[in-house]
Amino acid sequence: MATNSSFTNKSLSQIQSIGSVFKFGGTSMGSIECIEHVADLCIKLKPAAVVVSAMSGETNRLISLANQISSKNNLPEYDLLVATGEQVSVSLLSLALRKRGIEPAPMLASTAGILTDSQFSKASIQKVRGDAIRLALEKGQLPIIAGFQGVTNDGKLTSLGRGGSDTSAVAIAAGIGAKECVIYTDVDGVFTTDPRICPNARIIHNINYEEMLEMASQGSKVLHIRSVQLAAKWGIKLIVRNTFSDSKGTEMSTINSPIEGEVVSGIAATQNEVWIQAGASKSPVFHLASVFSELAEKNINVDIITQSHEDLGTKINFTVAQYDSNLAMETLNSRFPDVTLKLREDVGKISIVGVGMRTHAGVAARMFQVLASNNIEILLVTTSEIKVGCLIPREKIQHAIQILHNEFISLSF
Amino acid sequence: MATNSSFTNKSLSQIQSIGSVFKFGGTSMGSIECIEHVADLCIKLKPAAVVVSAMSGETNRLISLANQISSKNNLPEYDLLVATGEQVSVSLLSLALRKRGIEPAPMLASTAGILTDSQFSKASIQKVRGDAIRLALEKGQLPIIAGFQGVTNDGKLTSLGRGGSDTSAVAIAAGIGAKECVIYTDVDGVFTTDPRICPNARIIHNINYEEMLEMASQGSKVLHIRSVQLAAKWGIKLIVRNTFSDSKGTEMSTINSPIEGEVVSGIAATQNEVWIQAGASKSPVFHLASVFSELAEKNINVDIITQSHEDLGTKINFTVAQYDSNLAMETLNSRFPDVTLKLREDVGKISIVGVGMRTHAGVAARMFQVLASNNIEILLVTTSEIKVGCLIPREKIQHAIQILHNEFISLSF
Repeated sequence: MATNSSFTNKSLSQIQSIGSVFKFGGTSMGSIECIEHVADLCIKLKPAAVVVSAMSGETNRLISLANQISSKNNLPEYDLLVATGEQVSVSLLSLALRKRGIEPAPMLASTAGILTDSQFSKASIQKVRGDAIRLALEKGQLPIIAGFQGVTNDGKLTSLGRGGSDTSAVAIAAGIGAKECVIYTDVDGVFTTDPRICPNARIIHNINYEEMLEMASQGSKVLHIRSVQLAAKWGIKLIVRNTFSDSKGTEMSTINSPIEGEVVSGIAATQNEVWIQAGASKSPVFHLASVFSELAEKNINVDIITQSHEDLGTKINFTVAQYDSNLAMETLNSRFPDVTLKLREDVGKISIVGVGMRTHAGVAARMFQVLASNNIEILLVTTSEIKVGCLIPREKIQHAIQILHNEFISLSF
Repeated sequence: MATNSSFTNKSLSQIQSIGSVFKFGGTSMGSIECIEHVADLCIKLKPAAVVVSAMSGETNRLISLANQISSKNNLPEYDLLVATGEQVSVSLLSLALRKRGIEPAPMLASTAGILTDSQFSKASIQKVRGDAIRLALEKGQLPIIAGFQGVTNDGKLTSLGRGGSDTSAVAIAAGIGAKECVIYTDVDGVFTTDPRICPNARIIHNINYEEMLEMASQGSKVLHIRSVQLAAKWGIKLIVRNTFSDSKGTEMSTINSPIEGEVVSGIAATQNEVWIQAGASKSPVFHLASVFSELAEKNINVDIITQSHEDLGTKINFTVAQYDSNLAMETLNSRFPDVTLKLREDVGKISIVGVGMRTHAGVAARMFQVLASNNIEILLVTTSEIKVGCLIPREKIQHAIQILHNEFISLSF
């Protein structure tokens, strides 16, 4: 936690260490009332710096304006447009803080020195120059920084893509040497699984970074995956907490040993992927490398991949995001006209995640067993050291969450 | 008019002169449909650079968000907030132009080099560094520039106050050496008076800068007054035209001689001022200088001023904007506790404007005569070389416009 000194005129050398960077998401900034509440929270908890998202709904509103003109989004003007949402939030929170007697230092990416590459609409942060933020701290000001945006070396504004404000916050925490980064959102923390589907779901108070990565990439929407990667890489303690409650939240750490008995920490599920099956008999150009380099060229992310060589030829299975499915089909159709393509959209992915799996054999087998005994067909399987994921019919996802939570989590108490 | 070359890769040296700077106001940018129309207009008319306002209603929406938190507006975060409106417009018009095959150079004030003082919420432009705009022109790009905003020497974003986009456009035209500045709006030009009140009102196709200044300051809302002053000062030809029609519009020039018979060019009226009367008997501290320096300190603009010394003491009359009336009354009350203050809100100001007055005696007398014979009481009078203005009861304003238009303009055909 920051000490009082970050709001006073003591010079930075007198501040023992820079405490927390807080990040407030769209629902936390969703109305003037919410913003006033966030300002009160800042007064009470004294962060060293605050990163904000656009008011909820605002980014969608801006994107819909752009889409009415053009569907292209990898353009400087697109990023200039969507970045206004965070600018509004920075301004309003600054007004609310000044009203409470705190001097804000409102900062856009250019002022805060958040440097990115020039991949418009999905830029990556290269570096955070902490000077301007540190200077503000020395002056006793509270830096209020626009998330989700950056600036290229030649001064062009960029946006980080959806969820990028979490990443901004972690990068800023690293850039100024803060000891932790608290992501304030509208849920109490990371749950063992979706509590709307599984009433037994409970908050995970401590989670390993790798587990969190698997949870995030498998569909637990609390945190943007890149922010978890960066926090792990830079050793920033990452905490998820509810803006509107006093709950302890979820703290991420590098601790590797699971609490006794907790082989599986969480169940994650996604329903926004589709399954593509491509098959060809003895085509010299059709192989894993050629298929996935075509898709990569179009920036299509691929998830579960399997390949089989059968008597009739090669079969390649993989999943892509629903919104990429048309592009993926068209790309493959035009590049590999002889290949038979099948698209199946009614699928979902369910995963069990936990560092405990590393030392517990048979977890995957137990998962397959539970699914099979409940008549849930497994279409594809993907595994990592701390995760087992299965593609199953979409209509079975809710049921699968419940039975796997019962099998691995609820009963482990 | 710009030549084709401003959209091609010819270097600037090959462009004979930089043609027009276009400015599109809020209603011209009011919807995606309007913005697409503006893009078509740019393709057709080939401006050298385009300045845009926020979509109509957007600035009000932003100000109302700020006001829900704090009524203070002379703050950096306030300007950061309201400037987002123009940023959105810049982005959307850029998208629409790129769709049409033109490469836009979207620019905020910082990129375009629009330097201002640091009077937040009402900054004045000090200088326009034209380099970035000229560089874009050399590259064959069309600069699309955010109006209404500037940047201080130390990089803080500022806003110019209401109507400031007109001023931005004129300053940019001067900064890059353009030969004219066309203000596109939702009316056909400057009218002899408000056509909603006076059906005989007609467009003034040519107007002298000084007349335009009097018309603008007296309430003809087509142009922001500072933009007219700057255009006159820097010799920029200023034109007002309708985005949605092909009408010729109104062109401002330095021509001093009125067209034969046109003694009065226009009738202007305002209904947003109040009349304050202050009286004191033999107070040593109460005099014109002390009263108006107190008001100036609070940034209250004063219009019509009269003073009379009567047997019972000094009487000072003046008008201020309605929104300043409380502040003016409080200021005078606390500074001059012995002075009797009277506030009258049901007043309006009507003015006749024309360079022809310089050489025509008796115009004022004719105006007073017409008002008197229609039983319209004259409360205060103000005159300049090319204007006579009268404060009258607010309820009589419409009638006064009609009878003065009949007297001086309709009949002059």
